[in-house]
Amino acid sequence: MAHFMDVHRGMQGITAEQLRQAHQADLAIEREENVHFEKAWADPQSGTVYCLSEAPTAEAVRRIHERTGHKADEIHPVPLEV
Amino acid sequence: MAHFMDVHRGMQGITAEQLRQAHQADLAIEREENVHFEKAWADPQSGTVYCLSEAPTAEAVRRIHERTGHKADEIHPVPLEV
Repeated sequence: MAHFMDVHRGMQGITAEQLRQAHQADLAIEREENVHFEKAWADPQSGTVYCLSEAPTAEAVRRIHERTGHKADEIHPVPLEV
Repeated sequence: MAHFMDVHRGMQGITAEQLRQAHQADLAIEREENVHFEKAWADPQSGTVYCLSEAPTAEAVRRIHERTGHKADEIHPVPLEV
């Protein structure tokens, strides 16, 4: 298992409720890929959303986000943290 | 005070020790701008570093990172989190 940071763009105007719903949709199916979405942060002005997850592979993260309708634009493994 | 996510690119090959030292350099002076760097994650392969901070403004975050020699490529306020 490793940590991943993924980035979604074009989410201008996203609300707290929309972020919560998107995160809940991910949480509802994440176990099917052995992924856990730990945290998400959003900047409604630039339309950027960052998600931190623990997962076996970036591919597993990609599949969950695709199935819940919000494909990630970038998914980076982040093996280093401080 | 608000949360900010900033992004550094071009950090290919960054090591755990280099990340730790960069973070420590920020921590050493962050109070001068009333900033606190809470966490940083790095992907040495793509050369991307993400930093999460609490700060009065993006400008304050920018100044601390500049003074410690690692200018951020993007700094986004992230008023929403889940």
